[in-house]
Amino acid sequence: MEGKRNHLPFKPQEKCAVVGIFGHPEAANLTYLALYALQHRGQESSGIASSDGENLYLERGMGLVADVFDPPRLERLKGPMAIGHNRYSTTGESTLTNAQPFMVNYRQGSLAVVHNGNLINAYQLKRALEESGSIFQSTMDTEVIVHLIARSNQNSFIESLIEALKEVKGAYSLIFLRNREMIAVRDPWGFRPLVLGKLKEGYAVASETCALDLIEGEFIREVNPGEILIIDERGLHSFSPLLPERTSHCIFEFIYFARPDSFIFGQDVYSVRKEFGRQLARESVVEADMVVAVPDSGMVAALGFSEESGIPIELGLIRNHYVGRTFIEPKQSIRHFGVKVKLNPVREMLKGKRVIVIDDSIVRGTTSRKIVKMLRHAGAREVHFRVSSPPISHPCFYGIDTPTRRELIASTHTVEEIRKYLTADSLQYLSLEGMIKCTGYTIEVHPFCLACFSGAYPAKFPRHPITLPGL
Amino acid sequence: MEGKRNHLPFKPQEKCAVVGIFGHPEAANLTYLALYALQHRGQESSGIASSDGENLYLERGMGLVADVFDPPRLERLKGPMAIGHNRYSTTGESTLTNAQPFMVNYRQGSLAVVHNGNLINAYQLKRALEESGSIFQSTMDTEVIVHLIARSNQNSFIESLIEALKEVKGAYSLIFLRNREMIAVRDPWGFRPLVLGKLKEGYAVASETCALDLIEGEFIREVNPGEILIIDERGLHSFSPLLPERTSHCIFEFIYFARPDSFIFGQDVYSVRKEFGRQLARESVVEADMVVAVPDSGMVAALGFSEESGIPIELGLIRNHYVGRTFIEPKQSIRHFGVKVKLNPVREMLKGKRVIVIDDSIVRGTTSRKIVKMLRHAGAREVHFRVSSPPISHPCFYGIDTPTRRELIASTHTVEEIRKYLTADSLQYLSLEGMIKCTGYTIEVHPFCLACFSGAYPAKFPRHPITLPGL
Amino acid sequence: MEGKRNHLPFKPQEKCAVVGIFGHPEAANLTYLALYALQHRGQESSGIASSDGENLYLERGMGLVADVFDPPRLERLKGPMAIGHNRYSTTGESTLTNAQPFMVNYRQGSLAVVHNGNLINAYQLKRALEESGSIFQSTMDTEVIVHLIARSNQNSFIESLIEALKEVKGAYSLIFLRNREMIAVRDPWGFRPLVLGKLKEGYAVASETCALDLIEGEFIREVNPGEILIIDERGLHSFSPLLPERTSHCIFEFIYFARPDSFIFGQDVYSVRKEFGRQLARESVVEADMVVAVPDSGMVAALGFSEESGIPIELGLIRNHYVGRTFIEPKQSIRHFGVKVKLNPVREMLKGKRVIVIDDSIVRGTTSRKIVKMLRHAGAREVHFRVSSPPISHPCFYGIDTPTRRELIASTHTVEEIRKYLTADSLQYLSLEGMIKCTGYTIEVHPFCLACFSGAYPAKFPRHPITLPGL
Amino acid sequence: MEGKRNHLPFKPQEKCAVVGIFGHPEAANLTYLALYALQHRGQESSGIASSDGENLYLERGMGLVADVFDPPRLERLKGPMAIGHNRYSTTGESTLTNAQPFMVNYRQGSLAVVHNGNLINAYQLKRALEESGSIFQSTMDTEVIVHLIARSNQNSFIESLIEALKEVKGAYSLIFLRNREMIAVRDPWGFRPLVLGKLKEGYAVASETCALDLIEGEFIREVNPGEILIIDERGLHSFSPLLPERTSHCIFEFIYFARPDSFIFGQDVYSVRKEFGRQLARESVVEADMVVAVPDSGMVAALGFSEESGIPIELGLIRNHYVGRTFIEPKQSIRHFGVKVKLNPVREMLKGKRVIVIDDSIVRGTTSRKIVKMLRHAGAREVHFRVSSPPISHPCFYGIDTPTRRELIASTHTVEEIRKYLTADSLQYLSLEGMIKCTGYTIEVHPFCLACFSGAYPAKFPRHPITLPGL
Repeated sequence: MEGKRNHLPFKPQEKCAVVGIFGHPEAANLTYLALYALQHRGQESSGIASSDGENLYLERGMGLVADVFDPPRLERLKGPMAIGHNRYSTTGESTLTNAQPFMVNYRQGSLAVVHNGNLINAYQLKRALEESGSIFQSTMDTEVIVHLIARSNQNSFIESLIEALKEVKGAYSLIFLRNREMIAVRDPWGFRPLVLGKLKEGYAVASETCALDLIEGEFIREVNPGEILIIDERGLHSFSPLLPERTSHCIFEFIYFARPDSFIFGQDVYSVRKEFGRQLARESVVEADMVVAVPDSGMVAALGFSEESGIPIELGLIRNHYVGRTFIEPKQSIRHFGVKVKLNPVREMLKGKRVIVIDDSIVRGTTSRKIVKMLRHAGAREVHFRVSSPPISHPCFYGIDTPTRRELIASTHTVEEIRKYLTADSLQYLSLEGMIKCTGYTIEVHPFCLACFSGAYPAKFPRHPITLPGL
Repeated sequence: MEGKRNHLPFKPQEKCAVVGIFGHPEAANLTYLALYALQHRGQESSGIASSDGENLYLERGMGLVADVFDPPRLERLKGPMAIGHNRYSTTGESTLTNAQPFMVNYRQGSLAVVHNGNLINAYQLKRALEESGSIFQSTMDTEVIVHLIARSNQNSFIESLIEALKEVKGAYSLIFLRNREMIAVRDPWGFRPLVLGKLKEGYAVASETCALDLIEGEFIREVNPGEILIIDERGLHSFSPLLPERTSHCIFEFIYFARPDSFIFGQDVYSVRKEFGRQLARESVVEADMVVAVPDSGMVAALGFSEESGIPIELGLIRNHYVGRTFIEPKQSIRHFGVKVKLNPVREMLKGKRVIVIDDSIVRGTTSRKIVKMLRHAGAREVHFRVSSPPISHPCFYGIDTPTRRELIASTHTVEEIRKYLTADSLQYLSLEGMIKCTGYTIEVHPFCLACFSGAYPAKFPRHPITLPGL
Repeated sequence: MEGKRNHLPFKPQEKCAVVGIFGHPEAANLTYLALYALQHRGQESSGIASSDGENLYLERGMGLVADVFDPPRLERLKGPMAIGHNRYSTTGESTLTNAQPFMVNYRQGSLAVVHNGNLINAYQLKRALEESGSIFQSTMDTEVIVHLIARSNQNSFIESLIEALKEVKGAYSLIFLRNREMIAVRDPWGFRPLVLGKLKEGYAVASETCALDLIEGEFIREVNPGEILIIDERGLHSFSPLLPERTSHCIFEFIYFARPDSFIFGQDVYSVRKEFGRQLARESVVEADMVVAVPDSGMVAALGFSEESGIPIELGLIRNHYVGRTFIEPKQSIRHFGVKVKLNPVREMLKGKRVIVIDDSIVRGTTSRKIVKMLRHAGAREVHFRVSSPPISHPCFYGIDTPTRRELIASTHTVEEIRKYLTADSLQYLSLEGMIKCTGYTIEVHPFCLACFSGAYPAKFPRHPITLPGL
Repeated sequence: MEGKRNHLPFKPQEKCAVVGIFGHPEAANLTYLALYALQHRGQESSGIASSDGENLYLERGMGLVADVFDPPRLERLKGPMAIGHNRYSTTGESTLTNAQPFMVNYRQGSLAVVHNGNLINAYQLKRALEESGSIFQSTMDTEVIVHLIARSNQNSFIESLIEALKEVKGAYSLIFLRNREMIAVRDPWGFRPLVLGKLKEGYAVASETCALDLIEGEFIREVNPGEILIIDERGLHSFSPLLPERTSHCIFEFIYFARPDSFIFGQDVYSVRKEFGRQLARESVVEADMVVAVPDSGMVAALGFSEESGIPIELGLIRNHYVGRTFIEPKQSIRHFGVKVKLNPVREMLKGKRVIVIDDSIVRGTTSRKIVKMLRHAGAREVHFRVSSPPISHPCFYGIDTPTRRELIASTHTVEEIRKYLTADSLQYLSLEGMIKCTGYTIEVHPFCLACFSGAYPAKFPRHPITLPGL
């Protein structure tokens, strides 16, 4: 299925999942399982490419991993090497053309690649490449990287890859598959996570450690920022040929995105996320009868908040997990409809109570407002909204799908104005300092990108047209 | 799709969901939404029948509500009256033939029906009906009831229905749809829940109140045990023509089956379920570092246990909610594979800890054993298993899909034997007395069916062939 | 998929195909192939039931045989006995509920049945059965027969079947499948064809001999009018317990419906159909440059016409055979659109020519009119329309899907009026006498039903309500 | 769906269909209909791209036109310009990646293209392009042309196109779609047909005139060999900037490929094809009782043979047109199975007869052999095989999907050897001279490519690597 092909420069590969398996007789099957464990990083489309040493094979489809693949389709993915990808669902360009792996034939043979991240100079690079005769079939950043590799005059793939990576700026956790080798790359800032594991036979690379758990891979270490890791028949080979940059892990992985049972950026997600809740309690507790999480993402922080404050936690909002392909809205208006199909309040328990509701973040504020109203409608006497991260005031250009600045409620409104909009009795965010403290670092010295809270972007945006060397 | 047609007597309509909407311009759409809210009661197949006053319309399919129905299919379901059904997935007879609503033409016109429950004399009745010339197309109990109605010589539908209901024994929450009226019926024991609500326009009947919440229906009351409720243009009409029986609500609805945000059997499910956890703590607390629930069903009881015991609750097991149509197992063995695709332990947090793990019940024990082993493998020092219900020692014949007695681990093993099998450091169940106390009743006087714990079945099984009057 | 359930009495099983295979290890596969060869008798739905001696298996779906069945589905149809059915597509009730085989459980066990034909007293029988308590799930005549069998007090299936058949009037070529036997039945009038063949292993029964050809069955003989043929482990057993009736083969099988390579009613379809064309030439030749058939059905008669008249035949109308599930009409009007997507004239060849166009029959006249106009538009100087059957003036009640009398153009218009409507230069039909002569019989003595031409219906219609014996 | 990505150079776009509609409010709908009329040129996949003046839209799928498109999908194809393509099914690379239209973004904006034909220097060009950094995503020749356009330094699209076309050798009937214009191109040899028509509003370009007939387009003229035809808001603009070549129409379009109701290469296909049959009779008639065509492709020539020889034609082989997605073969061997599911002999008519069977061509001979055996098995006394074209002794490199030379029976066997293999009583082919004469030309002076009969290829094959100017 394909849709409108518009002229917007690029669609970022936001919260996607990447996986690579090398040297295992069931490479495609393990990739499938690892993608399943990483389904939370993307539900729009899923794909796997494999190699049997001579040919590359590719299967992609729209939808969840378990819906895209069936046994005959997995069997077509032959060979002991495979890479896979889950694409995050964004508005607009929801087409198979943009599904990954991205696969091409070029001078040095066949190449497949999966990508999590977002290049900030993709548009400029694309313009420069087109000027010298390149054609583009997708709207993915990834295609830019592949063109740069194909355009390089270097003799080996690795030299071409290094030449290409020297041109791109931004977030990329990449896994390449060639006929006889797999190459994992992480950008010099280390924006997105990428971990390396050992299987009974062979190696695995994945966005998060929870993928290793399901396939019984043993966590070895994270791929380092700026590292190029080659896995071939002779084993692991590591290079770090790019100029080092200030480490800038996306702190949103801790706040919301990574699964709590994963270990990334040197830490256990569950512990950090729970500590956010404890710290939030220290900063903002009020007298109340219960703590209620917005499920499922606010749950871990709410536990921390409850523990620190001594206010009991209750499952005051029940989530309906049975989501199908489509959801049909009735013509007549139903109050808070969009929220209601996912969440339902437990009336008896909320009736007459003072409730502290915990969510991990507020983007536009529309859903939070519906939740507050739903809780009140269910009988809550007071609703105190607490957010386990600071106000998001700036868009992200490295891969989290935040809207433009104008749509971010915290970019144009004060906390008090937001409180009024939410119709909450009180509203408090976790402080920036408090958040950093929970990770064991300080606001002065830390390895995180805080651009969405501060506007201080680690990788600088290009202002002028790019001239590619040799073009 | 249809499959093997075997000679087993009947397939019980176990944990199904039933819904009826009367007098609303978007009857089919609201039925769809109510079925969506009741998806937890059945995921195998889903169907809706509607009436526009002249014709009945029927649409059914295998799978989740949101997958079976799309807008054109819902539009074919014309008229202001509709009934719907979610069928619970059981082994074997997973065929469209058994999907509900069940619809027929007979002497008094067209009739559609949905059913939650299980008749204990279905086999005998079917034999008697066949002897006098009836043909059966499905293996559902429901078809027996419809045959009895069609065979009755009474002049009106209601008289025929009463005559039919006098013959059947067991659990039934039924909703019938005829051209111009809807009829809701609950068996005299009140085994399964059935609630009545008021819509802005018209009425709704459903298995649980959470369905009313989503469609903004106002809860009026439960349909009474033994009540026949007719809804037509003139309003509600109630009859109770059947002999009264000892009220026998299925207590498993509180333990596991109903959604915690529902109100059934005169009580709030969340509160009762949490009280089970508190009582379990009173009866069986041990020294430990944390309480961990088996998500999602053990979560509410675990909260109660944690609160009562003062031992902090942790989300030590993370559930993967993205389940697709199929799941493909790798050829190589992966430890605890079946459990692992659903649950993953949070290693960092469990390492070296003494863990109390809470589940709502143990049936065969195989999954519980895998969970214990998974927790130990993740580093837990001690694993204490606590169950928020008594040992299940007898099969259910009224609609919960329990296996035969031999397969129930508690029917053939002592608690200590089960503990050894689970490889747990300790194991304790909630006591029968304690459980009843949590509902506000006593073991001497209560309105529940406890047959699965005690073997005392409220409705007696037929021993001899049945002779139907007038056949 | 299911649709509107209306109150119309019955949907006739018009031009369907029936197949039965007994005693062959690949019974379901051969049934599939035989249905494929009989696809011209019905394209709406297709189904197969099989037996392995202990259980019956059923698979049905909407669409063409080759689309409904795939290898896994055929493999589910176990056992050495199978029956199959293609259903003809009619307006309205296009639902899976009406797809055959029809399968039930009743007093004497499991039973599956396929049916080609139409009962004329189905409505009265259904009313009588409903009065005594039967329920109906489909709108097929076939269900009436099964109810009558189930209601019979006879001890054996065959006795029950005979009792049932004594009640029904009309057209039926039936094949029943029970656990260990297959029973083929043809009505006493012999309305529809039914042939018997010998396989390398076992037997085959089918609507036409072309089905035997594909599966390498050797044609033995036709099942006789009124014959009940039992096939079981011991071989073939024949009974003729019903009162004999005047043989009344549907002559439309020769005119249009049967495949030309079939042998039915004691004759070769191709030869008879070609002789219709020769006789038509004798009766109605005019001076012309070419004979053009309406493909594909008019082709054989056109060959005969050409041979007899000496006027060369040309493929002046080309048929597009690639028909998919749906066909989308443009919003703007295209001349003769409905005909054009199927037929295109060969302009160069028609330009300035006098054309005799041959079709097998005219029902409403709308398509014929479009064809005449299309030929003129393509340049034909004269268009002489010739029909290789007499004017259809009466509807068929035995199974051919003709419209009500009012819609039949020949029932309300003279030949000259029809000619004017078609805008043809001349119009002639084959005479009734001439048609009969082509079969080797005379108008006085012949074994055919000519009701659609004459209104003389062989089986009398019931005027009064039916009282079933013993009910 | 995607499959193996191998290293074979290119998959020729053999007998595909191309369509373009410009300036009509229902451009996509008319394209759909035109593709439907051209379904005989390709059944593997189908696709349409459209433009609304600002954006290009693309929809493609595997299967028949009428199965790929439904109303919502056609509605997504907005705008008054559209191009479409049917792809012919070949072995191996049956993937959506190779479905057309092919669509890219490049320096000069968005571009979609459809292609019928085959480049003989595609492999060399691809190598040269890859050397200079191009990446390839499909195995279609078409992608080479687009890369050449993108690489050109010319300022306008037309100049870039001309530069690109100067590099490619072989067969191409191309239609490009840009935001505001459509460009049709035919190679200088004129290998494949391409016709231009006038609609009530706007213009149509298509492979054959039968597509114009269905959408009521008026045939204007053929696009000339070497012509570039631009259609934009201001009308038609024609250029012929390429060096002229010897006109080399593929004579196989007359023999077999084009629909008989089309007008291409300045002639009426039906008349030429029938004349082939007449000439074949003049060259090779024998005494016989009937002429039988291999349906449907041998039918027109068989009519000519019958007319010229005076031997009556009979429909001795009946074709089953109901072909579904898959066809399941039984495990047990059935004689001539592959042929039998398509063709069935009319036994009664063939019994004891001397039959002349006419087919349009013999490729491998395996099917012809099965047909001869099938006719004998049905009782034919003598079987004389006549072929309405000369022996195919050389493969085609311009787009007809002939196998390699070794597989062509006539390349390695004499006519007598082939006769023996077919088990025919006699075998004769149409002579090369005779065939040309039927077209009104002579063997000395004619506009046809006869390479498959003679091995004289009009466009020379490249022997050395290509150096692209400016790369």
